[in-house]
Amino acid sequence: MTKRKRFAAAACLLCAAAIPVLMTGCATARDSRAVARSSSQSASGTLDSWREGATRTAIESFVARTTDPASGDFVPEAERIAVFDNDGALWAEQPMYVQLAFIIDRVKALRAAHPEWETTEPFASLLKGDVKAVAAQGEHALGALVAATHGGMTDEEFRATVRAWLATTRHPTMGLRYDEMVYRPMVEMLAYLRAHGYRTFIVSGGGVDFVRAYASEAYGIPSDQVIGSTAKYRYEVRDGVPTVVKTGEIDFVDDGKGKPVGIASRIGMRPRIAFGNSDGDFEMLAWTTAGQGARLGVLIHHTDAAREWAYDRASHIGKLSRGLDEAPARGWVVVDMARDWKVVFRAEEPR
Amino acid sequence: MTKRKRFAAAACLLCAAAIPVLMTGCATARDSRAVARSSSQSASGTLDSWREGATRTAIESFVARTTDPASGDFVPEAERIAVFDNDGALWAEQPMYVQLAFIIDRVKALRAAHPEWETTEPFASLLKGDVKAVAAQGEHALGALVAATHGGMTDEEFRATVRAWLATTRHPTMGLRYDEMVYRPMVEMLAYLRAHGYRTFIVSGGGVDFVRAYASEAYGIPSDQVIGSTAKYRYEVRDGVPTVVKTGEIDFVDDGKGKPVGIASRIGMRPRIAFGNSDGDFEMLAWTTAGQGARLGVLIHHTDAAREWAYDRASHIGKLSRGLDEAPARGWVVVDMARDWKVVFRAEEPR
Repeated sequence: MTKRKRFAAAACLLCAAAIPVLMTGCATARDSRAVARSSSQSASGTLDSWREGATRTAIESFVARTTDPASGDFVPEAERIAVFDNDGALWAEQPMYVQLAFIIDRVKALRAAHPEWETTEPFASLLKGDVKAVAAQGEHALGALVAATHGGMTDEEFRATVRAWLATTRHPTMGLRYDEMVYRPMVEMLAYLRAHGYRTFIVSGGGVDFVRAYASEAYGIPSDQVIGSTAKYRYEVRDGVPTVVKTGEIDFVDDGKGKPVGIASRIGMRPRIAFGNSDGDFEMLAWTTAGQGARLGVLIHHTDAAREWAYDRASHIGKLSRGLDEAPARGWVVVDMARDWKVVFRAEEPR
Repeated sequence: MTKRKRFAAAACLLCAAAIPVLMTGCATARDSRAVARSSSQSASGTLDSWREGATRTAIESFVARTTDPASGDFVPEAERIAVFDNDGALWAEQPMYVQLAFIIDRVKALRAAHPEWETTEPFASLLKGDVKAVAAQGEHALGALVAATHGGMTDEEFRATVRAWLATTRHPTMGLRYDEMVYRPMVEMLAYLRAHGYRTFIVSGGGVDFVRAYASEAYGIPSDQVIGSTAKYRYEVRDGVPTVVKTGEIDFVDDGKGKPVGIASRIGMRPRIAFGNSDGDFEMLAWTTAGQGARLGVLIHHTDAAREWAYDRASHIGKLSRGLDEAPARGWVVVDMARDWKVVFRAEEPR
């Protein structure tokens, strides 16, 4: 891994932690814990949580044209690939990436078994709650935290840990479980595209096994259709039992220019549709929409300070600046969350 | 990439070339060019090319048990993952891996544009037909050949080159096109498993884009379900056009211990069924069958000198020794090609 990539990895996960107070338009705690949590929403493939308007029409028109054999824009089913960023595009990412909240909680949970962490960086600062000091230690600190919380176990063991954490942890200001902060309109979008023969993939800057822990239940996406940043794995025979172990050593960073690379390597086909929300998705959308034939790029613009958060050009998490500048010329659709979505979270009742 | 892995990469592709005369029981040229070449075989999911007997019964019994909700061995559809080695398991691999034949032909095809190759190794030896001398130059030679024939283009351009080569090239002794030397019984097996809710993946030591060039047509397997050895990709903007380019620099070797690692990374789930034919598949079968619940490991044993080739413990290509030794204790099914298959190649008429 190059120095540049390692830096990107560190920046990717920790920049959010550097300024935890950065919550541009943070919504206040809400009393919506008791709302319906059915995961059966929209298996029918309708966009009920999307308001009528130019955004919804543009997406529906694209899908209609590419699935109509009589259209010049028709796309054979084998080529119907749709890719989605995760953090900020399928679920919330403020005030810090959910995976970072998991890392912090895991260090606290493992504290008793690691008395040496009380006096060893970056653990000592993290345990004191000084996330800024951790971020200031750079990529080495990230590597140590990832290795300590993600390494040395099988992917199945790791995912069970993530699921147990998701089941018992609530967002600090929203009061919702993180997996309730999946965007209902996007869950509908995934089902809608699948109902039209598109296969849906996640292409996340987050760790692949973290996303795989809940992607099937939350999004209906199987583990092999989740692409993400990866740590190295190691095959070994433990007490006679063949085992694949996560090492915690970062191997591939699936962000920025890494996203088209991850897609080419894992999917082996240029997508027809790409959804993102930040400049980390710019290259994924640019490569997708530069292909021949009908292509669709969509940016989710976080404009809803009342129901979620409003942030874009100045945000340290999910910064969206170049994408907003170039979307019109590139023909990308920009979703205005406040305008285009009737509801935001999976936890909310449809209106 | 570690030294060990680079060596494995070199050995993987070139050991076959080191002793090109090694053709244990090579079948003679055959006059079967005019046979039916329909690719529509066995979409129905029946094992017509498999003879009745213990092998077929063992496989059918496993599939019946794992797909019967009333059985204690039932496997939910989401966990029905079947993985297949490619060279020697889905198509022929003698007297050298098909990808190596492609590399040799590509160097010859590009010769006129590279006059410097006439006096530069390893190209000079290769162009003189001295494959032994190329192999003796080790991993550096392999890297140069892969970079020259696989690098600098997009995956789409590369695969078009592979397809054009497959359409016009015949096996030196069999007289068949290489993609006619796909095993008909295995194409049936893929369709049979898919008809029973299993998703089928290729896990090949060969280059992923080489296999992807023909996997959809030959096997009905989409590109994202092909895992293989990979060269690095690079995202770049060429004359204003976003492009992902193959660098030709080897990044991951999907062989031996690399196969469980590739599966964990790409599929993210331990398979229920694994088919292989060589000791390069040992760890894949060992890891697969060490999982909880019903698991099936199958080795294709090349026993048919009359219709294909007979080789195992002494072969430099597709060596199968440890697998044969340990198959009984591990409960792996060993397919005897001569005994269990009515026909071998896709090119043959069913009997």
